[in-house]
Amino acid sequence: MAKLIECIPNFSEGQNQETIDGLVKVAKSVPGVNLFDYSSDKSHNRSVFTLVGDEDGIQEVAFQLVKYASEHIDMTKHHGEHPRMGATDVVPFVPIKDVTVEECVEISKKVAKRINDELNIPIFLYEESASNPMRKNLAKVRKGQFEGMPEKLQEKDWAPDYGERKIHPTAGVTAVGARMPLVAFNVNLDTSDLSIAKKIAKVLRGSSGGYKYCKAIGVMLEDRNIAQVSMNMVNYEGTPLYRTFETIKFEAKRYGVNIIGSEVIGLTPAKALVDCAEYYLQIEDFDYQKQVLENHLLG
Amino acid sequence: MAKLIECIPNFSEGQNQETIDGLVKVAKSVPGVNLFDYSSDKSHNRSVFTLVGDEDGIQEVAFQLVKYASEHIDMTKHHGEHPRMGATDVVPFVPIKDVTVEECVEISKKVAKRINDELNIPIFLYEESASNPMRKNLAKVRKGQFEGMPEKLQEKDWAPDYGERKIHPTAGVTAVGARMPLVAFNVNLDTSDLSIAKKIAKVLRGSSGGYKYCKAIGVMLEDRNIAQVSMNMVNYEGTPLYRTFETIKFEAKRYGVNIIGSEVIGLTPAKALVDCAEYYLQIEDFDYQKQVLENHLLG
Repeated sequence: MAKLIECIPNFSEGQNQETIDGLVKVAKSVPGVNLFDYSSDKSHNRSVFTLVGDEDGIQEVAFQLVKYASEHIDMTKHHGEHPRMGATDVVPFVPIKDVTVEECVEISKKVAKRINDELNIPIFLYEESASNPMRKNLAKVRKGQFEGMPEKLQEKDWAPDYGERKIHPTAGVTAVGARMPLVAFNVNLDTSDLSIAKKIAKVLRGSSGGYKYCKAIGVMLEDRNIAQVSMNMVNYEGTPLYRTFETIKFEAKRYGVNIIGSEVIGLTPAKALVDCAEYYLQIEDFDYQKQVLENHLLG
Repeated sequence: MAKLIECIPNFSEGQNQETIDGLVKVAKSVPGVNLFDYSSDKSHNRSVFTLVGDEDGIQEVAFQLVKYASEHIDMTKHHGEHPRMGATDVVPFVPIKDVTVEECVEISKKVAKRINDELNIPIFLYEESASNPMRKNLAKVRKGQFEGMPEKLQEKDWAPDYGERKIHPTAGVTAVGARMPLVAFNVNLDTSDLSIAKKIAKVLRGSSGGYKYCKAIGVMLEDRNIAQVSMNMVNYEGTPLYRTFETIKFEAKRYGVNIIGSEVIGLTPAKALVDCAEYYLQIEDFDYQKQVLENHLLG
């Protein structure tokens, strides 16, 4: 069966329609790739493309888009609210079907090397592709932004993974990497006490000793006057949704608080939810790839 | 997005390889249709094909297969263990993606009409397509088999839905209909008392006053020495898996018995399990079509 990989490149252009149209044209030009979605934000001055394709196609389209962006976006003239360091700011690859995140790491490295070889843009590998833990987090990699990159590249810890310690004059620096699909999962509590949601979020957060692949904060839903534990599940296989749900349930009990509902925001891979059904229905020996009908229809 | 429909025609030939190969060739000849699987059983003298295709393709391939079968299978010479009434015995259409079972009923009627118009084979509509409740159940429709059909067609209640009261001399009678995908779901109990599984199965079965879309029996798993409630979920939207699971849990408690696990046998649509995750995680306002990533990749 065909491997399916998602790529979500972010470009530092959200205003010039001609350039955006040019990127769309490139995105649609590669066989074996579908442009799934794209959106531009004027105040961020940034566009996000979502592409899905096979192993060869996704590498080709990612490279061609970075090339087009390097030829049409001039970072020395770029202004926008969103942090950015390159004409193509970031290129994540995400496993969708019949492919592992490890294979996506290999793909990200091949694309990164080609971008540097042919376009002379220095590359930081990030997330699962990172060469050291400091580079996993995109925010840390991008810190200093385009304007601060010439100096940052001179620092001891910040030699690029590909290329020399010197930005591309107009295209800056690009981050390339692989990551699992992200699931935005929020759990609502029957309390208006935000501090309880915050305490539970702290229990869950990998960074404060909780589940490794869960990012969590406590927020208020003002219109409903209830507190919510808002999570980004950055690897639903490493930390399944049901595990955070059950943990919230038993932690909330300490405060006499109950779960009243939850939300999945935006897209989720079916498997993130099927895994939860497997848990709750106590299904023995379920083989997701073989037993889910849709897996035999794709590609 | 493209509609995807499954068709699982059953042919009364499981021995003559030339005829089976001919059916395979026809199955692969229609654009927009994939032959997903096929298997032949010699003692049943029967072959089952699984095809998935778009709205036009699936109708065309179903008709062409029935035509080929009517030209190459002679029911007057057919012997096999499985009950049968026609060269093509049964043609069910099943909704897979972006299509309702009601639309599949319409498709089944169009194909049924064409089969009768062009091949002169009388048709019974069954399952969701049935013209009256007596014809929903295939076993009742097929009762009497090929040999008894000439007489059955004369009975007051058994005029065909398409065609006259007269079998096709060699191809007999065919049942055509639409149904939901079937999920085989078994729940294991921590008891070796089969009578408990049987009592719970009776509570669940639609036919004995339980859930409309659940067929259930109690069986022994001899190798594990435990009793099992074995179910066919014939419409997982009408009767979701979690509902039978939770019912088994609370009914088993009466006997001091617990669920120790469950099994999904063979294929299941992802939605049958995602619906369960929605229930257990208390997800508010989940939109399966829009929010499940894979729905945007198919077709």
